[in-house]
Amino acid sequence: MEEKKIIGIDLGGTTVKFAIVTLEGEIQQKWSIETNILDEGSHIVPEIIESINHRLNLYELKADDFVGIGMGTPGSVDRENGTVIGAYNLNWKTLQPVREQIEAGTGIQFTLDNDANVAALGERWKGAGENNPDVILMTLGTGVGGGIIAEGNLLHGVAGCAGEIGHVTVDPHGFECTCGKVGCLETVASATGVVRVARQLSEEYAGDSELKRRLDDGQDISSKDVFVLAEQDDPFALMVVDKVCFYLGLACGNLGNTLNPSSIVLGGGVSAAGEFLRSRVENYFNEYTFPQVRESTQIKLAQLGNDAGVIGAASLALQFVK
Amino acid sequence: MEEKKIIGIDLGGTTVKFAIVTLEGEIQQKWSIETNILDEGSHIVPEIIESINHRLNLYELKADDFVGIGMGTPGSVDRENGTVIGAYNLNWKTLQPVREQIEAGTGIQFTLDNDANVAALGERWKGAGENNPDVILMTLGTGVGGGIIAEGNLLHGVAGCAGEIGHVTVDPHGFECTCGKVGCLETVASATGVVRVARQLSEEYAGDSELKRRLDDGQDISSKDVFVLAEQDDPFALMVVDKVCFYLGLACGNLGNTLNPSSIVLGGGVSAAGEFLRSRVENYFNEYTFPQVRESTQIKLAQLGNDAGVIGAASLALQFVK
Repeated sequence: MEEKKIIGIDLGGTTVKFAIVTLEGEIQQKWSIETNILDEGSHIVPEIIESINHRLNLYELKADDFVGIGMGTPGSVDRENGTVIGAYNLNWKTLQPVREQIEAGTGIQFTLDNDANVAALGERWKGAGENNPDVILMTLGTGVGGGIIAEGNLLHGVAGCAGEIGHVTVDPHGFECTCGKVGCLETVASATGVVRVARQLSEEYAGDSELKRRLDDGQDISSKDVFVLAEQDDPFALMVVDKVCFYLGLACGNLGNTLNPSSIVLGGGVSAAGEFLRSRVENYFNEYTFPQVRESTQIKLAQLGNDAGVIGAASLALQFVK
Repeated sequence: MEEKKIIGIDLGGTTVKFAIVTLEGEIQQKWSIETNILDEGSHIVPEIIESINHRLNLYELKADDFVGIGMGTPGSVDRENGTVIGAYNLNWKTLQPVREQIEAGTGIQFTLDNDANVAALGERWKGAGENNPDVILMTLGTGVGGGIIAEGNLLHGVAGCAGEIGHVTVDPHGFECTCGKVGCLETVASATGVVRVARQLSEEYAGDSELKRRLDDGQDISSKDVFVLAEQDDPFALMVVDKVCFYLGLACGNLGNTLNPSSIVLGGGVSAAGEFLRSRVENYFNEYTFPQVRESTQIKLAQLGNDAGVIGAASLALQFVK
């Protein structure tokens, strides 16, 4: 008899990614479908079920070949009841009985968690986290999200907000955030945050700079533009990157001082700036950590890219292995 | 047959506290001895063993009546090997094989952890933490220490530094700390930190104030003096307390945003200021947390006082219960 497998699902606002994963976390098959958010997102779960059943048929697999299905989802997750609510990019405003529907539709045990947590589980298991018991993932994308694994456990907190490191306060007098408070890491280190920092600093910058010129010219600037120009030694872009990396290093430093993980892993679109970003964050991290943490906690780049979600989601189903 | 018991030990630089504790965490007996740090602390463990054996004899108890001994200790703890090193207030500079000695001397299974972690376990189990799975203790004393319990587990981190929340950076341009970096919470919220903040702010304060007068007069001021005067409406003392509570609220806020515990518990000597302190920390906590954390994480005062250490230490030995 062959070893059983897991299905990992990464449910996002534009695509649903699926993977068939071994118990060791190796992807054997992967595919994706578009997320159909019409009619209050009521087609999403049926289409997930249909896609799974279709693929199992294609690969000549049956429900009994799987220990379970794990899924990462946006919105507010009730893990105990297997439901999701308030996932606005899916149009899920009301309570969605996802587990009940997927278990009924596939005959496979199902479990879920939020997407940022699940990505952290993926990077910890098969990525930069090297399967260590203490790993933090910080995802720098449209927003800043994260997930924390400590003593081998994914942390949720009393109301499911553990790991919301995008809302750590890095400047008590900083920008207003969509969450209602000020100075959140997300306001200065997300893709739009980087541009916000650039616009703020440009008010005081008078030197020669292509980035400054584009901003003054009213052009649309992206976070990527800022990093590309900085790598080309644009002095103002370098100043912006330095400020962003200060905030990231301060936030990572305090995560290190508090939790002392083996690594803090930087992922998401902004982290595409790679070593250029990582090394600068690390410099500030070193400045804002005490010696034992500085020596034991590493700043790393994420390794799994888009696969973090499906792999981490699959890892949720390991709980079903007897 | 009566239910078995636990021995909890809180090893400090001036006294060693002992308690016989039930499996439910109720103290049945407690006593203490002076800590004899002479001769490189070589008398400490033998005197602990002697004291335990003497008391068991007195209470007509034997080794078999206990599931284990748990101990909280200063210094660097190797939990796996049951050793301690670098506990300078005990004169323990070299590796101390504590577990081996105590198990041989008492015939009872032994386990240990660091004192700040153990106090957190105590407050979580039988104090303000109400035995919830997610609780943080922040101890405001000579230094600022802490312990974090998340998803029911005490966090250690990769090098044992998890919970060192005294070294969270609350001001990137702040005071130098003994740890080598700047702006640590400990530099502004420990007993000496409160006085440091008072001295700094007094440079800019020109109004009428008893606290300011005493400082200018070169008198020795304690953290307690600052709080007593603030409660008497001394305007400058109120300003100092407000600044200290801002730093504490910011640090607690970021612990909340990161870990979302059910409570962050304030303990240690500075927390003797009670509700006067707690309510002010809570105000800043509310300012620096996002709504779901503000609504679900509470700021509380410690409840166990000196007993937190022995109760938490006892809880370590619950691991021996089959």
